[in-house]
Amino acid sequence: MPKPWATLGIDLHLEPAGGGVRRGLTDALRDAVRTGRLAPGTRLPSSRSLAADLGLARNTVAGAYADLVAEGWLTARQGSGTRVADRAVTPPARRPAPTPSRTGHPAYSLIPGTPDLASFPRTQWLKAARRALTAAPNDALGYGDPRGRIELRTALAGYLARARGVRADPDRIVVTAGFAHGLRLLAQLLHARGRRTLAVESYGLDAHWDLIERAGLRTEPLPFDASGTALDGLERAGAVLLTPSHQFPMGVALRPERRAAVVDWARGSGGLILEDDYDGEFRYDRQPVGALQGLDPDHVVYLGTASKSLAPGLRLGWMVLPPSLVDEVRALGGSSVPVLDQLTLAEFVTSGAYDRHVRAARLRYRRRRDALVAAVAARAPEVTVTGIAAGLHAVLRLPPGTEQSVVRSATWHGLAVHGLSRYRHPTATAHPVDALVVGYGTPPDHAWTGTLQALCNVLP
Amino acid sequence: MPKPWATLGIDLHLEPAGGGVRRGLTDALRDAVRTGRLAPGTRLPSSRSLAADLGLARNTVAGAYADLVAEGWLTARQGSGTRVADRAVTPPARRPAPTPSRTGHPAYSLIPGTPDLASFPRTQWLKAARRALTAAPNDALGYGDPRGRIELRTALAGYLARARGVRADPDRIVVTAGFAHGLRLLAQLLHARGRRTLAVESYGLDAHWDLIERAGLRTEPLPFDASGTALDGLERAGAVLLTPSHQFPMGVALRPERRAAVVDWARGSGGLILEDDYDGEFRYDRQPVGALQGLDPDHVVYLGTASKSLAPGLRLGWMVLPPSLVDEVRALGGSSVPVLDQLTLAEFVTSGAYDRHVRAARLRYRRRRDALVAAVAARAPEVTVTGIAAGLHAVLRLPPGTEQSVVRSATWHGLAVHGLSRYRHPTATAHPVDALVVGYGTPPDHAWTGTLQALCNVLP
Repeated sequence: MPKPWATLGIDLHLEPAGGGVRRGLTDALRDAVRTGRLAPGTRLPSSRSLAADLGLARNTVAGAYADLVAEGWLTARQGSGTRVADRAVTPPARRPAPTPSRTGHPAYSLIPGTPDLASFPRTQWLKAARRALTAAPNDALGYGDPRGRIELRTALAGYLARARGVRADPDRIVVTAGFAHGLRLLAQLLHARGRRTLAVESYGLDAHWDLIERAGLRTEPLPFDASGTALDGLERAGAVLLTPSHQFPMGVALRPERRAAVVDWARGSGGLILEDDYDGEFRYDRQPVGALQGLDPDHVVYLGTASKSLAPGLRLGWMVLPPSLVDEVRALGGSSVPVLDQLTLAEFVTSGAYDRHVRAARLRYRRRRDALVAAVAARAPEVTVTGIAAGLHAVLRLPPGTEQSVVRSATWHGLAVHGLSRYRHPTATAHPVDALVVGYGTPPDHAWTGTLQALCNVLP
Repeated sequence: MPKPWATLGIDLHLEPAGGGVRRGLTDALRDAVRTGRLAPGTRLPSSRSLAADLGLARNTVAGAYADLVAEGWLTARQGSGTRVADRAVTPPARRPAPTPSRTGHPAYSLIPGTPDLASFPRTQWLKAARRALTAAPNDALGYGDPRGRIELRTALAGYLARARGVRADPDRIVVTAGFAHGLRLLAQLLHARGRRTLAVESYGLDAHWDLIERAGLRTEPLPFDASGTALDGLERAGAVLLTPSHQFPMGVALRPERRAAVVDWARGSGGLILEDDYDGEFRYDRQPVGALQGLDPDHVVYLGTASKSLAPGLRLGWMVLPPSLVDEVRALGGSSVPVLDQLTLAEFVTSGAYDRHVRAARLRYRRRRDALVAAVAARAPEVTVTGIAAGLHAVLRLPPGTEQSVVRSATWHGLAVHGLSRYRHPTATAHPVDALVVGYGTPPDHAWTGTLQALCNVLP
């Protein structure tokens, strides 16, 4: 129960908090001023009289007053005693409108972009974290190389060369807080070099286009035709963002002659190719096509991420830069990636745990894709699964004019799924296509069968 | 030993790598093209003849050719067979000039800005990480709230209100990858609002000024006088960056009447105060002065960090925003802070491990400061330790004209220490002062006595 403390001049209810008498008195007085119970200009009793009233040592009260003068709640002037400062009452902070809660959390989700989070290798990750933190030298915990820890850059150089044909050198790798962080740095760099346009694909993520535009670059979509992304109009741009191994979300691979042509363009014009290799680990029908970067490491920035192979929540990505860009990217600011996570991933890769996890995930996702293709063929003959057998998502072509109604029907039945239209660049010229982008990697294993069933139920 | 394989038309040394015969052949051919051993335009033997030559199945060779066509190394045209693509040979990537190694790593360091990294609570941190990861729901591993995890924002709101007098609400807290990350977001926000000037203190970190200027804002230093940072000229700026509790590096606290005046300015003009509370946990002579933010949470952004209380390598910081800024900061991009670290810090704070660590650190640093003050008084009567008893650094005033020679002498004797001049804003009008900025928090415990000795040896 609060103890009412009457003072000589004013009637105060001081509720002493923990942390010592002086601290409690300071907090209580501050609170009284803050909430307006003590109005601005109010003269406080002398420390002697308040101390007597409260049964405290005078020094305790004088100390509390001094604290609050130092903080600006009270003023002390020779001859006029201690008063509540004029500006002390602040209008109550307005709370922002509450974030709309995810009302009616759907029972099933096929939203693409996230792997099966239930299969995140928690035990192995913790084991790697323990090993990494135990082995880390003290100075690893300080401010480090803006490119990231050398242990991780070395592990990634080996892994990327082996698994993705990337020509990687630890000196040219920059560890990022995920793909978007790397893209932001590169957009800033292009802007600083005087570029004002970045060519993008007709289909992609609006979050990426937004961040490019926030850096001061216009996004100009390349045409998308029956063979995938075409390169007409590239000459007007100084750089291009591509998903060559597995177009997101359309799911096709960039054709060999276009791979060649884009590299030729970059060489001839001094252009830069940003290669978004977001799911290069996951190809099911053959060896994955090597990274475009291997063709010309002087004109291609390779961007990879652990968001699909492990989990987005790790916020870990990497860029392999042309030599000429390393210093510029470095100058854009220190690494914002925690050292412990970097060391943990390095340990995870070098111990072989990363390969084991990716192999197991590849098998799981491949089975899901096969089941999806079979179920669609059996249950919805008007729907076609398009794109190569790769990644964590598939595009389901729908009969013309049905996309919106299928998405609405899915929502109604508790299934979250995205239509293709939301991935279409606002100024894309490609003929709109009705389709679903089905993230079959998203559900946990136990929900997969039910989710697939729910999808089939809403397909036309 | 590489096995020499002669083919019909060309003489190839294919060194099969691990990963299966087709993979090995693909890698070896790619390497031959890449390094120029197979020149652009060279026609390769038919898959049948190369297969016969190598003793492989024809399909294996055809598959390897197809892979390399898909990657763009080879071209296959009806009637002209398979050839090495024209653009295949890239000039060897130029390695950037090697980073200058820290030649002659100094034996002792008093560079400020880093706590004693040897005392990082590794065991407790790992324990918190294990608990946090074990308890985390699966969806915590996905893309989350751009403000950061609610567990950490709630823990911080409680801690900051209790320890620093911050008026914090989890809804208005944004978790950052350290102070610099928050400052960058705020500078971008100010720029987007049309501000072009940010007032700063005459003394501070050039890395901060640089990042403000990269966001398009001019930094304009406030005067620094005998009472610390003065506010003249503030009216020309729309916002000000301050270290009110412990000016960095000068070590004074902002005087009460100036605390009041800066809040009055912000209220009257709609200005914004960025409060950098980098070492608020460490005050040795009294209760720390509460955060300026408590006086007016609608006009002050409070910025804190775990870089001094735990370790910079964690890359963890936080901002408490006025309600009007929350959505704007959110729109600047997703949180780039790994979920596991956020959950670990939340567990660390709520379990009481953070308070225990800070209390132990406070005692350790206080002893070091006392020893520093005593040693300087005894050994260098011409030198004065200035600033309040707080934080992880002290300013040692030197006789006029001696700063550079003392820093040089220290370097010569294996002691890394910074002169005050490097912390002076290039356009500051304050009269230059000769001093050292001594980061007594930096050395590990075992090196402290030797480091202090080394410092005393070079003082005039």
